Amino acid sequence: MRVALLIEYDGIEYCGWQRQNNGISVQQTVEEVLKILTKTEITLFGAGRTDAGVHAKGQVAHFDTNSSVPPERYAIAMNSLLPKDIRIRKSWQEKESFHARFSARGKHYKYVICNAAHNIAIGSRYCMHYPLPLDIEKMRSAAQHIIGEHDFEAFSSAGRQTKTTVRIIDSIEISKKGDFIEIDVKGNGFLYNMVRIIAGTLIYVGEGKIAASEIPQIIKSKNRKRAGITARPEGLFLWEVYY
Amino acid sequence: MRVALLIEYDGIEYCGWQRQNNGISVQQTVEEVLKILTKTEITLFGAGRTDAGVHAKGQVAHFDTNSSVPPERYAIAMNSLLPKDIRIRKSWQEKESFHARFSARGKHYKYVICNAAHNIAIGSRYCMHYPLPLDIEKMRSAAQHIIGEHDFEAFSSAGRQTKTTVRIIDSIEISKKGDFIEIDVKGNGFLYNMVRIIAGTLIYVGEGKIAASEIPQIIKSKNRKRAGITARPEGLFLWEVYY
Repeated sequence: MRVALLIEYDGIEYCGWQRQNNGISVQQTVEEVLKILTKTEITLFGAGRTDAGVHAKGQVAHFDTNSSVPPERYAIAMNSLLPKDIRIRKSWQEKESFHARFSARGKHYKYVICNAAHNIAIGSRYCMHYPLPLDIEKMRSAAQHIIGEHDFEAFSSAGRQTKTTVRIIDSIEISKKGDFIEIDVKGNGFLYNMVRIIAGTLIYVGEGKIAASEIPQIIKSKNRKRAGITARPEGLFLWEVYY
Repeated sequence: MRVALLIEYDGIEYCGWQRQNNGISVQQTVEEVLKILTKTEITLFGAGRTDAGVHAKGQVAHFDTNSSVPPERYAIAMNSLLPKDIRIRKSWQEKESFHARFSARGKHYKYVICNAAHNIAIGSRYCMHYPLPLDIEKMRSAAQHIIGEHDFEAFSSAGRQTKTTVRIIDSIEISKKGDFIEIDVKGNGFLYNMVRIIAGTLIYVGEGKIAASEIPQIIKSKNRKRAGITARPEGLFLWEVYY
């Protein structure tokens, strides 16, 4: 039976979603709990490989099992064994053709900036602090140039192999909520560090270091150095996966 | 010169506001930073003594110093030295008659409950999880009996000396925001654990373990055992101090 999980996690204490040698991953933590429940080794396939320190509100993963545990029971059983910073929001049976990663049609990432002179203490693990004033309208106008189908090589970090660096960004919405700026990015797929580099580039535009009109040239250059900083991991959330 | 500070902190890692032998306190952490900046020993007077694990959005404290640091500069200078979970939101000069604790006319505490089958992973350090359904209307009707001037001995834990256990609660507002229930309590003063016991009692009312109409008898009994549980510290915030 194929079982899917909707997973929320606070990524601060983890080396990322995927198993690695340099720390505890979310994947490994969840797999170990599934091993206890099913009494067999379980391999989990996640929709997105979030980096160290990145959070997820709606990561999706699937696994196959012969266990007699009813699929919808996994959520409550797993939550009783998982650490507090990982919660299974829902578990359900999926058809055999479902694959958390390959069936995904798109993803929604959220990037949160605390744009005030002083950072917050309560919730500082859920945003990037940027003390200099940011011009939202400039950021919005730069975002318009990022939307669409482009070769996003200039917006990706080396270190992960992909066949193509062409991706489609469906929308970028930038909203201001008090001292916070939220950047909601939806697209069909994302390169390594792509959302964090988009956020870092929009921050540079908001600050005036890069002009919104330069974005098309930056994309065309395919040169990572032309884009802005890689914004810090704690501001990033894998918000939702679309199927 | 008397300087006042508006302090926000995430209380999870601290033994509370006040210096203690069993852990690092917020007071001590802030005093050590002031010692670096002023090159003298500084004693800080806080408006409220929050317990271990309790947060503050708007703690107020004052200290006296002969340092030449301009009072409004303390905020930024201290934030560069403080750990991320403590932030000085503002610093300013106060008149010599001002006392953070004794000049306070009242305080606003907020208690946050995550009332859903599964707790959240993101932000679980800022709420108490209570999975059983709570009836908000019953909680509101119980709150009406708590408002006013009463001897709140039944709503206080032993362990701290006070001359009188009579306090005035000005208002209790209970609001539902998605899966979250927020209880906003304003009053002229609070006994040890009083807000957490009010929250725990309202939870018992919401669940049906205590009837709203029993509250006057519970107050009259002056018996701590008649009230509800002491709700967990991580749901509590010292939100604002009124002068």
